Amino acid sequence: MTFRFDLLKKDSGSSARLGVITTPHGEIQTPVFMPVGTQATVKTMTPADLKDIGAQIILSNAYHLYLRPGHGLVKKFGGLHGFMGWDRPVLTDSGGFQVFSHGLLNKITEEGVKFQSHLDGSRHFITPEISVEIQEALGADIIMCFDECAPYPSTYDYYKGSMEMTLRWALRCKKARTREDQALFGIIQGGMHKELRLRCLDELVEMGFDGYAIGGLSVGETKELMYEVAGYTAEAMPVDMPRYLMGVGTPEDLVECVWRGIDMFDCVMPTRNARTGTLFTSFGKLNIRNLKYAEDDLPVDPECSCYTCRNFTRGYLRHLYRAGEILSMRLNTHHNLHYFINLMDGMRQAIKDDDFAGFRKRFYEKREVTQC
Amino acid sequence: MTFRFDLLKKDSGSSARLGVITTPHGEIQTPVFMPVGTQATVKTMTPADLKDIGAQIILSNAYHLYLRPGHGLVKKFGGLHGFMGWDRPVLTDSGGFQVFSHGLLNKITEEGVKFQSHLDGSRHFITPEISVEIQEALGADIIMCFDECAPYPSTYDYYKGSMEMTLRWALRCKKARTREDQALFGIIQGGMHKELRLRCLDELVEMGFDGYAIGGLSVGETKELMYEVAGYTAEAMPVDMPRYLMGVGTPEDLVECVWRGIDMFDCVMPTRNARTGTLFTSFGKLNIRNLKYAEDDLPVDPECSCYTCRNFTRGYLRHLYRAGEILSMRLNTHHNLHYFINLMDGMRQAIKDDDFAGFRKRFYEKREVTQC
Repeated sequence: MTFRFDLLKKDSGSSARLGVITTPHGEIQTPVFMPVGTQATVKTMTPADLKDIGAQIILSNAYHLYLRPGHGLVKKFGGLHGFMGWDRPVLTDSGGFQVFSHGLLNKITEEGVKFQSHLDGSRHFITPEISVEIQEALGADIIMCFDECAPYPSTYDYYKGSMEMTLRWALRCKKARTREDQALFGIIQGGMHKELRLRCLDELVEMGFDGYAIGGLSVGETKELMYEVAGYTAEAMPVDMPRYLMGVGTPEDLVECVWRGIDMFDCVMPTRNARTGTLFTSFGKLNIRNLKYAEDDLPVDPECSCYTCRNFTRGYLRHLYRAGEILSMRLNTHHNLHYFINLMDGMRQAIKDDDFAGFRKRFYEKREVTQC
Repeated sequence: MTFRFDLLKKDSGSSARLGVITTPHGEIQTPVFMPVGTQATVKTMTPADLKDIGAQIILSNAYHLYLRPGHGLVKKFGGLHGFMGWDRPVLTDSGGFQVFSHGLLNKITEEGVKFQSHLDGSRHFITPEISVEIQEALGADIIMCFDECAPYPSTYDYYKGSMEMTLRWALRCKKARTREDQALFGIIQGGMHKELRLRCLDELVEMGFDGYAIGGLSVGETKELMYEVAGYTAEAMPVDMPRYLMGVGTPEDLVECVWRGIDMFDCVMPTRNARTGTLFTSFGKLNIRNLKYAEDDLPVDPECSCYTCRNFTRGYLRHLYRAGEILSMRLNTHHNLHYFINLMDGMRQAIKDDDFAGFRKRFYEKREVTQC
């Protein structure tokens, strides 16, 4: 087994941690943000771009690739790495969350989930065992247990029942796996209830996984509640294992959750928002559609060193957006991903310097002071 | 005036010529293919990509940029070069052809053309003088006279009257220009009638331009007729001036028209077809949508050295196309433009080697023999 997590350092003023994950496709310095490549491509980006931006690992989705082009086909091309020409680490989501958010859900039973494809309405049935089979064919370095992401808000009883089934599914995933070269992460559910979260975590640790993820957050709850749940869950998670907060979040979320001890993040926000013209900068968000940028000859973020900011003005980017040009989505995506990844670089440096509190303070100050 | 054309060599077995155009933004080796960047962007491509592919000059459109974002705005950003971050030569079309093909044409008079915007229906009036003003603001290295591109087929009398007005408009463009650092090309019209084409050419040469273009071809006529008109027109064009065949064409068209003495080409075909999955290769066209490529692990063209062919399989490209991914359009565009530009490189080498006939023979043989 080539998978390993080494905790390098802890920040003394917060729960932030510096680590390194070793995988068959190389090392990942943590805390890390993983760009999302749903359909075996991070939208608009080539693997060369992703390396240029400094992406260490990308996330892809079992649900989407199972439906199209089919995990068997991806396997024939050497798995996701061979198929999409990406030789660094990959993590696949189990399909659990996507079945609930994209598919036409027919029925959840103890056995698994019946749903209809969002592409053609065809009927499918995914069990924990099938999810592992799909993810083994896709060949990611890190695969996830099949879980139920309960809707928010749900009753305590629903969260409890759902969490308990997620635990039984986790055990089935663990038993179903056959590949030794993939890490399998357990997913902690339990809604917004501390006792459910901690019980779920305990039982997953009892089963033993290669890493642990917090699922079921950023589903409509307040920021305060999300930070609270992420905080007490992270605090209880094994110190010597990677801690992954799924589907989170904004730059502020990343800073707050690294503060609370999270090591890994993924989110479609930088890529999706880029395509609709929302750009992330050191002084906050910028909407490139705004008329005030029409004659603006500054780069998106004067502090940014990405290809987009080195070469293009806000005025030009606004023109591309208005003209419906594909290059708009591409340049915006490049910038946003660079911003997220550079933000994580800064956080890692701050932990090295044992000054995460100072980093966090400056992060917020810049947003308040700088006008654009 | 920094614009100059030097004829370096003539092929002994054909009318193919090797030359170099000098502009304020550098040299252009001819024969050359110019990628089309209608809205101040070659769709999906960055300037860095275009350089990587070997693009020497790109074409942009006065009509589109006049409507959006406005030539005055582009001028504020330092013209097209500054606006789009491209430091190599640019040629702008006058807007004549686009008014006829995109706008809702209201009226053509001796004074100019009244039309409605394809974007919002707003009413506009472009004269030869206004076209020159727009193109001077856009700041291309080479600008074009405002002409009427007569519909095909038209009557002899219509072609004759239209050509004569195009001549009067050409003189007005010449008188209206104020910038010494831009080359102005005259456009030869006259439909499919040799005597009209030659008379138009003679009168343009009499006025004196920095280069001459053949307009009004590839508008629905047969290939044979297009080659015939391009051939006798090119033969009569000044030897010491660049010869530009507008809006042409397929790889075969490029080979046939270089054979007949043309130096410059532009066409949306490589970029537009890329976005709908049609790829150009050394053995002919390939439709990446085809089921037979689903499990194909070859590159698009095993003889191609472009980024797409070096890194991705037909199977992956087919998946991206079917999944509606933007990366599909981008990788396909990269390949197609590389193919067109590489084809021109090969033609220039063949002229240097004084073997254009051999090049042309091998070009067709490969298409007949190789199956894919």
